[in-house]
Parts: sequence; C-alpha cells; structure tokens
Amino acid sequence: MKRTSRDIRTAHRYEVLRQIIAASPTSRQELAAATGLSLATVATLVGELLGLGMLTEVGFEDSAGGRPRGLVAVDAAGGALIGVDIAETYVRAELFDLSLAVLARAEADMRPGETRPDQVAGRVAETVAAVVAPAGVADARVLGVGVSVPGQVDRERGVCQYAANWDWHDVPLLDLLAGHITYPLHLDNPLRACAVAELWFGAARGRGDAVVVNLGTGVGAGLVLGGGVHRGVSNSAGEWGHTTLVLDGRLCHCGGRGCVETYVGAPGIMLNLRELSPGSPLLHPGDQTATIDALARGVAAGDPLALKVVADTARYLGAAVSDLVNLLNPEVIVLSSWVAAALGEPLLREVRAVVGRHALKRPLAATEIVLSPVPTDPVCLGAATFALEGALSAVGRRPAPTGTAAPRAGTPSAPAGTRTAPPA
Amino acid sequence: MKRTSRDIRTAHRYEVLRQIIAASPTSRQELAAATGLSLATVATLVGELLGLGMLTEVGFEDSAGGRPRGLVAVDAAGGALIGVDIAETYVRAELFDLSLAVLARAEADMRPGETRPDQVAGRVAETVAAVVAPAGVADARVLGVGVSVPGQVDRERGVCQYAANWDWHDVPLLDLLAGHITYPLHLDNPLRACAVAELWFGAARGRGDAVVVNLGTGVGAGLVLGGGVHRGVSNSAGEWGHTTLVLDGRLCHCGGRGCVETYVGAPGIMLNLRELSPGSPLLHPGDQTATIDALARGVAAGDPLALKVVADTARYLGAAVSDLVNLLNPEVIVLSSWVAAALGEPLLREVRAVVGRHALKRPLAATEIVLSPVPTDPVCLGAATFALEGALSAVGRRPAPTGTAAPRAGTPSAPAGTRTAPPA
Repeated sequence: MKRTSRDIRTAHRYEVLRQIIAASPTSRQELAAATGLSLATVATLVGELLGLGMLTEVGFEDSAGGRPRGLVAVDAAGGALIGVDIAETYVRAELFDLSLAVLARAEADMRPGETRPDQVAGRVAETVAAVVAPAGVADARVLGVGVSVPGQVDRERGVCQYAANWDWHDVPLLDLLAGHITYPLHLDNPLRACAVAELWFGAARGRGDAVVVNLGTGVGAGLVLGGGVHRGVSNSAGEWGHTTLVLDGRLCHCGGRGCVETYVGAPGIMLNLRELSPGSPLLHPGDQTATIDALARGVAAGDPLALKVVADTARYLGAAVSDLVNLLNPEVIVLSSWVAAALGEPLLREVRAVVGRHALKRPLAATEIVLSPVPTDPVCLGAATFALEGALSAVGRRPAPTGTAAPRAGTPSAPAGTRTAPPA
Repeated sequence: MKRTSRDIRTAHRYEVLRQIIAASPTSRQELAAATGLSLATVATLVGELLGLGMLTEVGFEDSAGGRPRGLVAVDAAGGALIGVDIAETYVRAELFDLSLAVLARAEADMRPGETRPDQVAGRVAETVAAVVAPAGVADARVLGVGVSVPGQVDRERGVCQYAANWDWHDVPLLDLLAGHITYPLHLDNPLRACAVAELWFGAARGRGDAVVVNLGTGVGAGLVLGGGVHRGVSNSAGEWGHTTLVLDGRLCHCGGRGCVETYVGAPGIMLNLRELSPGSPLLHPGDQTATIDALARGVAAGDPLALKVVADTARYLGAAVSDLVNLLNPEVIVLSSWVAAALGEPLLREVRAVVGRHALKRPLAATEIVLSPVPTDPVCLGAATFALEGALSAVGRRPAPTGTAAPRAGTPSAPAGTRTAPPA
C-alpha cells in the first residue's frame, strides 16, 4: 500500500532500462510509447542512467522533417554484475556485462559433508573470485553480486530463514559473505531469480501478469503481477510447490501431504517412475539428474515407460498449472529450471493438453504456456539482475558509509537487501 | 505493463479518497503521510475531489505554531451511488451516500422460471427505480450504478460471458440495462465486488496484499495485490473455487473434479453433511440457506453432528486457504459472503487451526485470518464502489456524448465498463 514516490520512480527506472536492453538503440520517444510513461519522465530517467554510465548516446535518428531524435543504447562496458546460484550440489557464479551477456563462469561442487553456512560462504567467495580474476574486471566496475539460495529468504536482512536440504535455520548468509566479498550483496531464492530473469530477459518481458514455474528438485511459482515480481508481505510468495493437489496424498518434507512438489519435483517424478516400474533401468536411485536425463532420452527414443512417466507427471503438473491459470489469469506461464529444460517439448505438449481439459475457458483463452527461452542458467541471470535492480534502486541515495560496521539493510542509506563490506 | 500515467493518477485518487473516507476530517499533510504520496500530489488530488463536490472544507487544525492546516471531509451529500447484487434467488439494490452509508434498500425475488436475460434486466431496473424513488434523490446526484452478476464477466464490454446457474453465454447485460437505466453503469461479479468492499471499507483497507475468500453457493478468492484488485489479463482472476484440492475427487459443474468449491461451497457443505448422516434433520434438500442456518444453530447448541460437519468443512477449507497463504503470502485472508457470515466464529476457529498445521511457517506468521467486518451486504457495497471508482476514473475525461447511440465502452470518452444511456 505504502508505495512511496521513490518506489514508483525505481519501478519506472527498471521499466525504462528493461526496454532499452530489449531494443537498443532506441529513442526517448520510442521508450515513452513502449512504457506508457510521459516523455518528460523518460527523459529524466534516461538522463540518470546516462549519468550512471549505464547508457551511452549513439547518434540520431531521422524523423521525417522533425527534429532529429537522440538515440541511446546500453553501455555494455559501463559496469559488471555477478550472479551466484547456490544449488544442492554445486555453486555456480557468472559474470555479466551490462547487456547481461556472460563474460565468465565458474563452478564448484558442493560436497555433502561441507554444507555448514561458513563452508558454503567460503565456497561462494572462491567462486566469485574465480570469475572476476580471469575476466580482468576492475573492482570498481562490479556493481554488485546477487546470490540465490534455495529456501525461504528474508532479503531485507540477508538471512536464509530455512533451507530444507541443509537443515539451515536463520542463517545470516549475507553477513557471512560480507566477510569475503567487498561488492554490494543481494540475497534471494531461485524462485524469484527465475522470475526476474524471465521478467527482464525472457518470456515475461512486456507482460503484466506472468507465472514462472520452477521445476527442479524443489518446485515453485515465481509470480510477476502488475509488471513486477510479487513477493508477498514477507517475501515468501510463490510456494506453489507446497499447495495441496491431492488431499491426504504423498507425504512432503514440509510436513504436509499431497503437495504439488511431491508429484512434479525431480524426486516426485522418480517416484512416479518407481510406482510404474520399480526395477526400471531408467531409475538411478539417489541420482535425480541421471534419472531425469534417462527419462528424456527414453522419450526421445519412444520408450513406452518413459512416455507414460511423462504423461503421468503432466497429469499432475497440468492440474496444478490449471490452478494457476484459474486463480491468477496470467498472460503467460513459463516452465523453467533444469527439469523443464531436460524434458522439454514432450512435457510441454502433454501439459498443454491437460490444461486444455482442466482450466476454465475464459482464463485459458488468455494464457500461453511456454518453455523458458532464457539460454543460460536462469538462476545466475536472475541473481545478477537482483544486483542490477539494487544498483538502480540506490540511485539518488546517499552512498553507504565506509567503516568497520557494515550498514544495516533497511536504513535510509542502503537499499533493502544490500550489504556493503568495508574495502579490504 | 502499460500502466499509463492516467492509470497511476486514478489509483492515487482512489487511495486518497479511501483514506479520507476512513478518517474524516483530515489534513493534506496527514493524507500524504498515510498514503506515501507527496504533499504536492495530495494537494492536487484533493483539489480535484473538492471540485467534483465529493469533499468539503471543514475548517482548520492548529499545528503548534505553524500555519494552520486546512481540513477536508467527505461530503456525504455530494453524490449518490447504487449497488446491485444479482444473486441466484434475489435481486437486491442499495442506495448509498458518498460516505457509503446505506440510504435505501430494495429487493425482489428471482423466480426460477424468469431468468432470461431480458427478464433479469427488467427486474434489476424495477429494483433500482424502487430504491431511488423513496429516497428522493435527484437523478443528477446519482454518480452511477454498479451491478454484480455471478459468473465470468467481461467488464470492458459489459458482457456476462458465462453464468452457470442460468446457462447464460455472452449476454450483453449492460446494453440490456442501458435500455432501462440512465445512470452510468458498471458490471462485474460478486468475487470482485467483495474484494473492493474489503479494500475500501473492510479488512483489506490499508493492506498491500489481501485475499477475500467468498463463501456462498459458489466460491472464489478476490485478490488484492499491491494495494489494488488483481483482475488478471481477462478479468477472470480469483477462480479459486475451481482449483484442485482432491485430484480425481468430487465432480464439479465446471467439468473438473475435486475443485475446492465442491467441498466448501454451500452445496458442497450439504454433501459433507449428507455423507455423514443422509437422513439428518439438519439437511433441507434443495434449500441451501435453510441447511446452512440449521448447521449454524446446531453448532451453537453443541450438536455433535453439526460440529463434525463444520470440522470436516474446515479441514477442506483450511487446506485450500493454506494454499493461498503459501502461494500469495498475503497480510490478511478475509472470509466473506453468506456462508461465512452464517457459520461465523466456529468456522473461523477451525479454519485457523487447520491452517496453523498446514501452511509454511514464514508466510503463516505474516497472515491474519478474519471474518469480514463489513456490516451490510458486501456485494451491494462493492458494486456501489465500482460506480465510485468509475466516477473517479472519469475525472478529466470529456463527458460522454448524449444522443441515441450509447457510447461504446473503451472509447476515449468513457471509462472501461461504463455505459451511459441517453436521458429518457
């Protein structure tokens, strides 16, 4: 409710930069037409972005007799962003330029015995260092680091409140990372990382209302509503994986029963396979990736069992996606993350067919269901976008004070979820 | 995405008036503090509302040495609004002043054999006439009529696309009504009427994110997100009654199975009762109201069967409400409409207990579950609010032309969903 004029201005700044990244070079007039903002507002925002070095003037366009219109484009070299994807089995970091092209990538395994918070923070720090060094990026050019960690995240305080896989409770991850990393840090989870990746660069761009369905080990739905990510009152919206699909159904690690995740997350799909054929060679016990890959190959080869598993999974997934269509009436539903990428078009086809039978006609007619078009790791891309959004929302704020104490997020001097460590 | 500066200004106008209605008299300074808008913006918007005669200046407040601050209040007599609730069994109209106090009320039965669109339009017209005449309201003071009709509504075109109870398909109800009613008309459904009633006058006021659960014959969830009603891309968001709670469960009239509505709508509750005790005297076959009232009396008297039916219903409702908590992470969930009103606190208590066991901790801690505090028919109140919103969004537009042809909604001269008939 209390959306301040600063919030509104930040949202407009996002919209204008998003549009420029989508269609560079472009004129202020085109930007006004594309965003619905006034030309005066666009001119002010473009001026700010030019001042930050994020944009560059690239000449003029003829306008049939009128005054020539100035063209602007993203200055890809105007800054760098780092996105970190902390997953159950690996840590991946990617370094991006301001056009969000990947400049460098580094990855480290997460060893099962080394998942204490300080160990994970150390692994992240090594991976970030590994990605910066070879790219030869001067420290000053890195605008920030976005970090995605699975679980429930308090982004304002930079705390991982709960991560089921490692039994983390209230881990102050951003404080731990600030001991190693001197760039501004931003924490959130994969659900929202995938949502902002689609919103800025993928199938949700230019859409008012979209749902990004995250199909991995865990399952969730990143909600883009009214042109922005819907976070909910305590940044935990999107826990669609823990909505009930089968009352009193399969037991879920959240303590509930019949949750969507227990049927369409990677372990749920493995169970769908095991129920059909306990001894199938497609099943790699304890190895989700190998099993999902084997299913994908089986489907490609026309294996009836693999086809049946995908059809069964789509029956669950289609019913749950229909719920999103009926409840939220979005323009597009995007299937994202590694399970969706692996099972691809065959899964999409089956899901579309099930939704066609389940959803109400009116919202169904308004909704597209697509695979994510983001060509790289959407979690790294989305995490880097958190850093970009952080840099944009900090425009006009006083710079964070330097000193021994990191400023608390939420104070007027630092944007929410940002932590800046003193220079080393 | 394409939220124009006009849309933003209209939203701000809603916010300011909402705040003034909540706390009259008030100063521009207090309004700026309460809404997060700048003092300059508030002053402009207050000026507009004064010019429309919706507000009145009511003196000054001392401000400890500073300049005295002007106070404004709603001018209750500055206009009248009519809300119409077309239900399965009745048509009710209420006339409100600008403080949204009820000035007059009229009701007519909907006879089973008389549910053709032209018959219903005629019944609505009679009811509206009945409410205006005795109140002695000059035509010019009626700012508009909001009409709620159950089903899927295309509000831009004023068409009832689908109403299950009467088997209506693509009925141009607003055009039919414009043949009888000369005030500006606005059409939507009970789901959204209850949501705007809570947003303007009830438990969702001042909340960024709220869900208004509508428990009647049909079931739905009006979504208030980011301080406004979330309508979805084709105005059909909120069809929570048709999300799956029990895969392959009870058959629903939508053609699906296991929909929430089949367990917690009034007919679903009757089935919950019948499954426990087919011959119970609490059961009034064919009469939903009598059965729900009998259950409410049974619960009050400690009847074990009635208590068990409410507990069973709460088990379904609580699981489905938990899904809303987990997916949307709202500040408040409001139980509204006649079934919620009839079963009241005992139902609320059971639902809270079930949600406490089902929902994830983080969103659960942030969410209140309450009964609607709106003391009158929330559908009439919400429908009248559509008319108020319509009047506010028309500010600064050219007045609709008069003549024989009603202007099409969607043309620049008329706000979406508005139809103005020529003067009789």
